[in-house]
Amino acid sequence: MLKKQKLKIIPLGGMDEIGKNLTVFEYGNDLLVLDCGLAFPDDEMLGVDLVIPDTTYLVKNKAKIRGIVLTHGHEDHIGALPYVLREIDCPVYGTRFTLGLVTNKLKEHGLAAKTKLKPVSHGDTIRLGEFKVEFIRSNHSIPDVSFLAITTPVGVVLHTGDFKIDPTPIDGSMIDLARIGELGKQGVLVLMSDSTNAERPGYTMSESSVGGAFDDIFTANRHKRIIVATFATNVHRVQQIINCAHQYDRKIAVSGRSMINVISVAIELGYMKVPKGIIIDIDEIAKYPPEKLVIITTGSQGETLSALTRMAFSDHKKIKVGPGDTVLISATPIPGNEKSVFRVVNELFKRGCEVIYESLAEIHVSGHACGEELKLILGLVKPKYFIPAHGEYRHLMRHAALAGKMGVNKRNIFLMGIGQVMEVNDESAKITGVVPSGKVLVDGLGVGDVGNIVLRDRKHLAEDGIIVVVVTIASDNKDVVSGPDVISRGFVYMRESEDLIEEIKVCARQSLEKSRGKKIKDWNTLKGNVKNDLSDFLYDKTKRKPMILPVIMEI
Amino acid sequence: MLKKQKLKIIPLGGMDEIGKNLTVFEYGNDLLVLDCGLAFPDDEMLGVDLVIPDTTYLVKNKAKIRGIVLTHGHEDHIGALPYVLREIDCPVYGTRFTLGLVTNKLKEHGLAAKTKLKPVSHGDTIRLGEFKVEFIRSNHSIPDVSFLAITTPVGVVLHTGDFKIDPTPIDGSMIDLARIGELGKQGVLVLMSDSTNAERPGYTMSESSVGGAFDDIFTANRHKRIIVATFATNVHRVQQIINCAHQYDRKIAVSGRSMINVISVAIELGYMKVPKGIIIDIDEIAKYPPEKLVIITTGSQGETLSALTRMAFSDHKKIKVGPGDTVLISATPIPGNEKSVFRVVNELFKRGCEVIYESLAEIHVSGHACGEELKLILGLVKPKYFIPAHGEYRHLMRHAALAGKMGVNKRNIFLMGIGQVMEVNDESAKITGVVPSGKVLVDGLGVGDVGNIVLRDRKHLAEDGIIVVVVTIASDNKDVVSGPDVISRGFVYMRESEDLIEEIKVCARQSLEKSRGKKIKDWNTLKGNVKNDLSDFLYDKTKRKPMILPVIMEI
Repeated sequence: MLKKQKLKIIPLGGMDEIGKNLTVFEYGNDLLVLDCGLAFPDDEMLGVDLVIPDTTYLVKNKAKIRGIVLTHGHEDHIGALPYVLREIDCPVYGTRFTLGLVTNKLKEHGLAAKTKLKPVSHGDTIRLGEFKVEFIRSNHSIPDVSFLAITTPVGVVLHTGDFKIDPTPIDGSMIDLARIGELGKQGVLVLMSDSTNAERPGYTMSESSVGGAFDDIFTANRHKRIIVATFATNVHRVQQIINCAHQYDRKIAVSGRSMINVISVAIELGYMKVPKGIIIDIDEIAKYPPEKLVIITTGSQGETLSALTRMAFSDHKKIKVGPGDTVLISATPIPGNEKSVFRVVNELFKRGCEVIYESLAEIHVSGHACGEELKLILGLVKPKYFIPAHGEYRHLMRHAALAGKMGVNKRNIFLMGIGQVMEVNDESAKITGVVPSGKVLVDGLGVGDVGNIVLRDRKHLAEDGIIVVVVTIASDNKDVVSGPDVISRGFVYMRESEDLIEEIKVCARQSLEKSRGKKIKDWNTLKGNVKNDLSDFLYDKTKRKPMILPVIMEI
Repeated sequence: MLKKQKLKIIPLGGMDEIGKNLTVFEYGNDLLVLDCGLAFPDDEMLGVDLVIPDTTYLVKNKAKIRGIVLTHGHEDHIGALPYVLREIDCPVYGTRFTLGLVTNKLKEHGLAAKTKLKPVSHGDTIRLGEFKVEFIRSNHSIPDVSFLAITTPVGVVLHTGDFKIDPTPIDGSMIDLARIGELGKQGVLVLMSDSTNAERPGYTMSESSVGGAFDDIFTANRHKRIIVATFATNVHRVQQIINCAHQYDRKIAVSGRSMINVISVAIELGYMKVPKGIIIDIDEIAKYPPEKLVIITTGSQGETLSALTRMAFSDHKKIKVGPGDTVLISATPIPGNEKSVFRVVNELFKRGCEVIYESLAEIHVSGHACGEELKLILGLVKPKYFIPAHGEYRHLMRHAALAGKMGVNKRNIFLMGIGQVMEVNDESAKITGVVPSGKVLVDGLGVGDVGNIVLRDRKHLAEDGIIVVVVTIASDNKDVVSGPDVISRGFVYMRESEDLIEEIKVCARQSLEKSRGKKIKDWNTLKGNVKNDLSDFLYDKTKRKPMILPVIMEI
C-alpha cells in the first residue's frame, strides 16, 4: 500500500515573535501561503524601515505555489506582499476590504496591474491544488476578517488569524461560531490560534463598549472641539466616532495620510456609513465653530511624523491646538511606544488641551481574544493537534497551557519556531526539519543589503561616533607627505576640542613613526597599529571607544 | 519699614520630567540644595551614559551654598552628587542608609575623603544659615526616607521627597503622619509633593502584601530552585525574600554587583536582618540541592549586562538556568523597558524555566502614593501654596487637579518648569524669572562635551552610516594625484557592494572635474559639491542619506 503523504506546516514568521506572519502549507506538489506580513524594526535595527520574512523557501518552490490567502488586512499580515510578489507570481485571495487595502499598497509599489487579486466572501470555499480553503466570518479590530479552514487530504487545519469573540460588533456580523463548532464536530486535525492575549484572563470587551465612553465624553465636552486619534485600520472605531459626531451635530475633518486612505477604501467598498455632508475638508475647519467639529487623526502611538504629534508640537500646517480642545487617544501604546505616546500627551497638556487616554478612561478595547475566548474556541474545535500562533514565546507558552487544560493531549501541542517543518497526518505529527527563515531588513530601496555587519557598525557609530585619520605617503620612500589629518563626527564637537584633535594627530604620527622604525611596510599592519594606538589613547583619555578609520593614500 | 525678603524656590530638575531631582531654596545670603539626582538617557541620546542637571546656577552661587540635604538614596536623588561635588564644596546631610549609598558612590569617583557627610536621624532638625531642616520619617521603596520640613523666615516649606503611605512597612516604621499633621496645623506655606502616581486612583498596596505572594510561590515551588530579580535598593523586598528563604529552609546566593553592594551596606548599617549562615557564596551553590536555594539577583528591568539577562542568555559564569528553576521578576517594567524585560522572560521560558512576572502575579507594589494618599497629605498639610513635583507634565497636571479638589486655591497652585524661579513669602507667590537649567550629558569621562551637534551626527550615522571620500590633490596645479578612494561604514556591506562603491568613485571624480571646469578653487565649495552630487546620486539609487565626508589632502 502506498504510504499516505504528509502535510507540511512551515511558519516563516509570527511564531516566537510579533509580526511578519506567514505560514506555508505544503502537500505533494501544492503549496499554499497564509498571510504575508511585515514586522517593525527593533531598537537594535538602526535605520531599518521594516522587516520582512526570509522567503528563500518560497522562491525555491515557486512553481508549486497555488496562491496566497489572507486572513485580514493589517500590516503584519499583508505588509510583505509588495516584496514577495516581486519574487513569486501567484493569485492573492482575501475578503473585499482586505484586498482594498492590498490594492492601495500594491499601487504604491507599481505592482497593482500585474497582480491577480481574487475577492472572496465569508462562507466561500476556494480550491487551490489539493487544498480547499473556506473563509469563515470572524471579529477583530479591522473589518472583514476570517478564520481559514484548510481542507487537505490528511484532514482539516483551522487557522484563526487574529480574532476576538465580539457578540455585539459594530457591523452586526458576529464571528461564525456555529460554523466553527460544526467543523469541530466533523473533526479538526490541527488548530492554529492567535496567542496575543493568552496571558490575560477573562474576555475582551466588545468594540461597542467604546461607543458608550465616547458618548459620555462628547456630552461632557459639548463646548469644545474634539480630536480623536486611533489606528487608521480600526474602521469600526472610526464609525463610532462618526456616529457620535452625527448625533451631536458636529462636522468631521480627517488628518493623516493613512487615516484618509483607509477611510476612502472603507467608504468606497461600503464598510463605513457616513451621513451625507458630515465630512468636510481640513481647509474648511475655520468655517465652523470648534464645538461643531470633530477631527479624526493618526498618531495614537506617538509616531514622530504623525498628524497628532505635529499638532502637539505646533508643527501641523492646518490645525492649531489649545485650551479649546479635548484630545482622545483611543488606543493602547504598543510595547516600546509608551514614551513617545506620553511625550505627545505631555505636550498637548502644555498647550492647554484636555487629554483623555487609556490610563484615565475606557476608550479602547483590544482586538485579540483573552483566555476565556481562547478556551471557548479550543472547546468548540477540539483539535487533535494544537499550534499556538501569533505571539512571543511567553504568549505561546500560556496558550499551550490553556490548550492542555482544555483537554488537548500535551504531546500534541507544538510550540513552533519559524523555519521549522511540521509533518502531520491523521496518525502523527512531528517536527522533521528546518528551512531557511529569519529577518530580511528593508532600508530605503535596499532589501536585505543591511545585515549584521552594517548594523554592528551603525551601533558603534551611534554610541561613540567616528574618527577618520588620513595621511598621504610617498610610494617610493614611504615618507609622510601630507597629514595626518583628523576628522571626527559624533565623538566630540570638533570646534570645542581643538586640543584633543591635536593630540590625536600627534598620536597618529607617533604610531606611524614607530611602525616605520620597525620597518613595517604592510598597509594593513600599519593601519591596524594606528587604530590600536589611537584607540588606547582615547579610551585612557575619555573612556570612549569611537570607530577609528585610518586612511592611507599613496602617491 | 524694610520690605521682607522673599524665599526663592528653583527646581533645577525633576519637574516636567522623570529624574535628576534637584531643588534650590534661596533666602538672602543662604542657599540650600534639596536632592542631587541623575536621569537616564532617552533613546535619542545615543551613546550617553547618564544625564545630570545643569548646575551653572549653583556654581555661580557656590559661596552661598550651606549644604545639600537628601530625601533618600535612589539614583534620581543622589546620582549627580559625584559631578556636583567636584564643582562645589559643601556638607551633605541625609539619613544613615542614604549616606551609606552615597559613600559607595563617592568612593567610586575618588571623592569620599574630601566630602563632609553628615548623618541625620528622623526627628532631627539641622540649621543651615537661615534655614532649619527637619527630617520626618516616611515610606517608599528604599529604607530611611524622609519628608523635609524647611523652616524659612517666610514660613515652612514641606517637601515630600518620594513617598507612599504604608501602614504596615517591613521595618515597622510608618510614615510620621502625626508630625506632618502637626506642621499642617501650625501652617505650611508651600507643599511640594511627589506626583509619580497621581494618575492612579485609590491607594498603593503595602510592601507587606508582596510577602503573601512570595509565600504562595515558595509553597507551590518547593521542589525547585527559586530565582528572584528585583531592584537592588529595595531592601525591604530583599528582606522579605530572605524571610521566605529562612522559613522554607533555603540558602541564599546573591548575584549582580549593585545587589551585592546594597545588601552589604544594608547589613553593615543594620537595615537588613539576615539569619546567620543563610547567605552563601555564589561559588558554593553546587553544594546544595536546587530546592534548598534562592538566588537574589539584579536585572528586573531586562538590562543588557545584568545578572538575570546573562542567566537567560546562558552567559552567566556561575549560574545555569533550566527546567528546575522558577524565576520571579519582582518589579514593573519602567516605561521604555518593556521590550527588554519581555525578551528576558521569553528567553527564560525557552530554557524551560517557570517565569512569574507582574502580568501574572502580585509580586510587586509601587513605592509612590496614589490619588487617595496624595489627597490625605494635602488634607493634613493644608498648604497655602502647592507645587506638584516629581513627574512628567501629565502627572503634575493630575496632582494639581487633586489639590484643587482638596481646597487649595487654584491661583496658589504652580506647575513649575525647571529653571523657573518662584519668589514666595506669606503674602504672595509668583514666578519671577529663570536661571540656566537643562540636561548635561555624561559620556564616559566627558561631562557636557556631548551636545546637540554630536547627538545629531550620531543619529545620522546610526540611521544611514557614513561614506568617506578621500582624494589627494597637487597644491600647484590642483591635479588629482591619488584617489578618490571610498570607505563606508554602516551604509552597505562594502564587500558585497563593489559595483556601488565603484559608481561612487566615478561620481566623486566627475564632481571634482566639474568643479575644476568651473575653475572652483575654494576647498569648502569643492567639498560641498562632492557632498551634494554624491548625496543626490545615492538617494536616487538607494533612497538613503548616508553622511558623506569628503577629505581633500593637498601635497
